Amino acid sequence: MKAYVLYSGGKDSSLMAILLKRMGFNVELLTVNFGVYDSYVSASKSAKSIGINHNVLKLDKNILNKSVDIILNDGFPNNGISYLHKSVIEELADLANKNSVSAIADGTRRDDRTPKLDKNEIRSLEDRKNIQYVNLDSFGYKTIETLVYNLFEITKEKSNRDNSSDYEVEIRYLMDNEKDGNSIELFPEHYQTRVIGLK
Amino acid sequence: MKAYVLYSGGKDSSLMAILLKRMGFNVELLTVNFGVYDSYVSASKSAKSIGINHNVLKLDKNILNKSVDIILNDGFPNNGISYLHKSVIEELADLANKNSVSAIADGTRRDDRTPKLDKNEIRSLEDRKNIQYVNLDSFGYKTIETLVYNLFEITKEKSNRDNSSDYEVEIRYLMDNEKDGNSIELFPEHYQTRVIGLK
Repeated sequence: MKAYVLYSGGKDSSLMAILLKRMGFNVELLTVNFGVYDSYVSASKSAKSIGINHNVLKLDKNILNKSVDIILNDGFPNNGISYLHKSVIEELADLANKNSVSAIADGTRRDDRTPKLDKNEIRSLEDRKNIQYVNLDSFGYKTIETLVYNLFEITKEKSNRDNSSDYEVEIRYLMDNEKDGNSIELFPEHYQTRVIGLK
Repeated sequence: MKAYVLYSGGKDSSLMAILLKRMGFNVELLTVNFGVYDSYVSASKSAKSIGINHNVLKLDKNILNKSVDIILNDGFPNNGISYLHKSVIEELADLANKNSVSAIADGTRRDDRTPKLDKNEIRSLEDRKNIQYVNLDSFGYKTIETLVYNLFEITKEKSNRDNSSDYEVEIRYLMDNEKDGNSIELFPEHYQTRVIGLK
């Protein structure tokens, strides 16, 4: 049994990967890229550091374009990021079907709000695509912190486009370089936690 | 880090136990008993078969009494079983606090309806009791079936009071022997899956 895990190199998607691996899945990590900026490099280093196979999932730039348009129109990022994540999950499910992979997963947690699939969206996805979807809904914030601390070496730095593989990197790049946006107003500076090894 | 897992000997609570164990928790299985019938014996055999420490959590018969009254009043079991489960989780959290155990868990799944804590009840529990609560919400029906099949030897038999440690056993016993109920009308005959070893 094989699972694709949507992977950013952060602690949540790393935890999801290790959990599935320990439960017997053959895990392959996939980081999304829309061809705008090579934001997958950070995730590929994290993947190597935890010893799990990693690849880049190249997707149509139109998805990113539409996400950025939603964000610029709204004046805040939530809906655009949510649209992006749901589109990515659909693409991931299609790839899994194509390659006879039975399960897909992401690192969304019980306490997350955006981006996140709700129960109805999960049921719809599983039924429409005949796929199994797994996330971190079993766990609350504290349990995840405890597990991450026990499992991983992590580093915390000011986020920039070369130490993160979040959707935000390509969204901001496209916004600042091809649209009339100014991403610093919409995405405040924050610290980025990245997995750099197993304990 | 230690976790108490509410345990029936069935596949869901067994999966919850193994998952937490593989993620590094020191797991102790606990089966509830209200002193009405020794329904924990089946769970204790299952616990032994998967090699995890097991104990009986003896609780006040009044909880069971009230549950049975709700069921008899309603004419169907859902609300009474839900009341029972939520009361048990509160007691489990208190015991965990008393013994400095940081997490409690049950085998409820994403697709379950009753008994099950919803997100607001989980948040309330975690805040009020300063405890971490974990369940199987990460997984859908198919994934759980796959994991269970890979992990456990299981047996499937017509349910009776000596091959099950579900709440139902003591509910029915109390209903038939101390109340004016006829439990066979409220709990239809069904097949019982029980874990009898690791693969």
